[in-house]
Amino acid sequence: MARKNAFYAQSGGPTAVINASACGVLQTARRYPERIGKVYAGRNGIIGALTEDLIDTSVESEAAIAALKHTPGAAFGSCRYKLTSIHEHRAQYERLIDVFRAHDIGYFFYNGGGDSQDTAYKVSQMTAGMPDPIVCVGIPKTVDNDLPITDCSPGFGSLAKYVAISLREATFDVASMSRTSTKVFVLEVMGRHAGWATAACALAAEHEGGDRPVLLLPEIAFNEGRVLAKVEANVRQYGHCVVAVSEGVKGSDGAFLAASEKRDAFGHAQLGGVAPVIVDLIRGRLGYKCHWAVVDYLQRSARHIASETDVQQAYEVGRAAVEFAIAGKTAVMPAIRRLSDEPYRWDIVEAPLSEVANQEKLLPPDFIDSDGFDITAAARRYLAPLILGEAYPPFRSGLPDYVTLQNIAVPKKLTRPFVV
Amino acid sequence: MARKNAFYAQSGGPTAVINASACGVLQTARRYPERIGKVYAGRNGIIGALTEDLIDTSVESEAAIAALKHTPGAAFGSCRYKLTSIHEHRAQYERLIDVFRAHDIGYFFYNGGGDSQDTAYKVSQMTAGMPDPIVCVGIPKTVDNDLPITDCSPGFGSLAKYVAISLREATFDVASMSRTSTKVFVLEVMGRHAGWATAACALAAEHEGGDRPVLLLPEIAFNEGRVLAKVEANVRQYGHCVVAVSEGVKGSDGAFLAASEKRDAFGHAQLGGVAPVIVDLIRGRLGYKCHWAVVDYLQRSARHIASETDVQQAYEVGRAAVEFAIAGKTAVMPAIRRLSDEPYRWDIVEAPLSEVANQEKLLPPDFIDSDGFDITAAARRYLAPLILGEAYPPFRSGLPDYVTLQNIAVPKKLTRPFVV
Repeated sequence: MARKNAFYAQSGGPTAVINASACGVLQTARRYPERIGKVYAGRNGIIGALTEDLIDTSVESEAAIAALKHTPGAAFGSCRYKLTSIHEHRAQYERLIDVFRAHDIGYFFYNGGGDSQDTAYKVSQMTAGMPDPIVCVGIPKTVDNDLPITDCSPGFGSLAKYVAISLREATFDVASMSRTSTKVFVLEVMGRHAGWATAACALAAEHEGGDRPVLLLPEIAFNEGRVLAKVEANVRQYGHCVVAVSEGVKGSDGAFLAASEKRDAFGHAQLGGVAPVIVDLIRGRLGYKCHWAVVDYLQRSARHIASETDVQQAYEVGRAAVEFAIAGKTAVMPAIRRLSDEPYRWDIVEAPLSEVANQEKLLPPDFIDSDGFDITAAARRYLAPLILGEAYPPFRSGLPDYVTLQNIAVPKKLTRPFVV
Repeated sequence: MARKNAFYAQSGGPTAVINASACGVLQTARRYPERIGKVYAGRNGIIGALTEDLIDTSVESEAAIAALKHTPGAAFGSCRYKLTSIHEHRAQYERLIDVFRAHDIGYFFYNGGGDSQDTAYKVSQMTAGMPDPIVCVGIPKTVDNDLPITDCSPGFGSLAKYVAISLREATFDVASMSRTSTKVFVLEVMGRHAGWATAACALAAEHEGGDRPVLLLPEIAFNEGRVLAKVEANVRQYGHCVVAVSEGVKGSDGAFLAASEKRDAFGHAQLGGVAPVIVDLIRGRLGYKCHWAVVDYLQRSARHIASETDVQQAYEVGRAAVEFAIAGKTAVMPAIRRLSDEPYRWDIVEAPLSEVANQEKLLPPDFIDSDGFDITAAARRYLAPLILGEAYPPFRSGLPDYVTLQNIAVPKKLTRPFVV
């Protein structure tokens, strides 16, 4: 294949390590100058492609590109914008092809979760029948850890580490004061449908038995009586109780417990605020003084305490994506394959996008303890290695020294604008 | 003075570094075996003294004591329990003296905020006229940073670092997505009356001008119209807006904006939950998609990212407290004196407890920018050194390796119980 430019975009919610994947893509692409010309990034994800708002990454220094590995957020901007089916909205796909042709793009790298892998798959289908098809490679990313095939989704390990550390620290705090003050602490974490983040909170406990966080998983219908009995039993036995609750926890009627039910751009319910609901219940019914925290975006941007394993994996899926593309592999996604639990060994394999798109990996039933409030030993074996290692960013003046790129626009070549 | 035992207790809300002060006390006391016998810690603060529930710290290994320096929470238990005036409740003070005499205690170290310094002062007054008076030394601690005389209160620097980092990271996240998703992010931090924690959020910004967090300080009456105009202006100019709000922000009527107004054991309003109130307002009036976080106890227990400066100061006030006591100084508190801003140089001086007790240091007016939404250069000069350095704890299995002491009780010597 002749030398072509590449397009890279970030999609969906940022993570602490999505820029490490960008770093993997850009550093690897720069090693193949005979195959890959410039890498253009979409400003605000796929919207940048549709509106021909491309960023020229070639003007960024090696140092700036390297600093992406320790910078949270999405360096080129991300978006929540789902391409509908080709039949419904053919113009979108045709526009993408027009922009890619205009800028001599032969490689399409799309870094995101299930919706994004679906987009990458659709673009690959669209161009497959054309002469000189575009090589399409998805790059996994989601703190929700719900992508299939891959052992885990880059971004999740750092979120897991952050929530486990936060809950361990809060437990030390609450245990100190429970004699005369707060007896119950509730931490709300992300996870609309899959309880991966909540499950990771179980790692906060230092020991297998004894005083462990009570998990309220979205996979288990919330049963008021059982939850109150569990909290009361913990307070009686240990003097305090810590609870980790998924933003997506639902009652037996299937309705979210969280107060807010606004919808986001994908039509997903915009959640947040179930912790105060749980606290109101516990305080009202058991009379305990309670505190709660909702960490929201902090949990997915906490690059200051990212998992080294996660950073490495995020980088490697970026690197592998370029290697796959150079090898002419299309409609694939680099996936992490676990070779052993302890020591944790893994490598990268290729997963067909057709098998990745729009699949959602929930917590396996054998990861949930029989009482529904804890995880099993199998889950701990799975989760434990994902949080290993501390990949500290450099600090300046007491704060992490994150990079902001120049993000200089590539001159437009098309005359027709496109409204998204 | 003959060899005497010492009493040490932790009071009020834990911090990320109160145990570093304990470490300073215990390691220093062990260097004076001819003057200090055993150090007994109060289980759950002063309640341990009243109920004769003392912990024998002499059985803890050197390694366990050293590990206190990197462990959050209050290792011996803390409490919210304020001794009333000697006239009102003389029996409490007499009981303390009885317990101290029974266990041959000649030194009283009390580690806490303003209320605790008040207690230490009262105990010193009570025993001053007696033969063989007890040496009373307060040790400063409070994330609220509201103790007078001392340059800062140990615990605050680490909270400041945590909230500044958290808001910087969230800003990178929000800036990435604001084109199609969340435009406003609100972080709620501690601070009932003094806006120190909120002011520290201003350090999150990378530059002096431009896109800076909007601070909602408790010192400035909340003005709905002005706040909405400021948020809207930031969104128009930068595409997004981040807000740091104090839990104690009040309207022009002086009433807290937060929904909950429960009282704690000291009669202080138990706040929390003002961020969702602000978000409801912004979403309702400006129509922006908003997210919010309430970090609650996480901000005061985040030992994983403690300020090295803060850890050193916490240790040093503990060490100095013992040195003061050995020198026969009583009714004093080690205070941090700033010698220069940059480089930050400081030493320890003695502050009379009579001047410390029940004083509350608010943000000076010249620390607040004229529009009320930011801090001044003077405030940045004050705050910047307090967050310097990263005193990472050791990690094991991807999590901070915090110590839990044995906390073995000293056999009781008094027959009369005391009910608190």
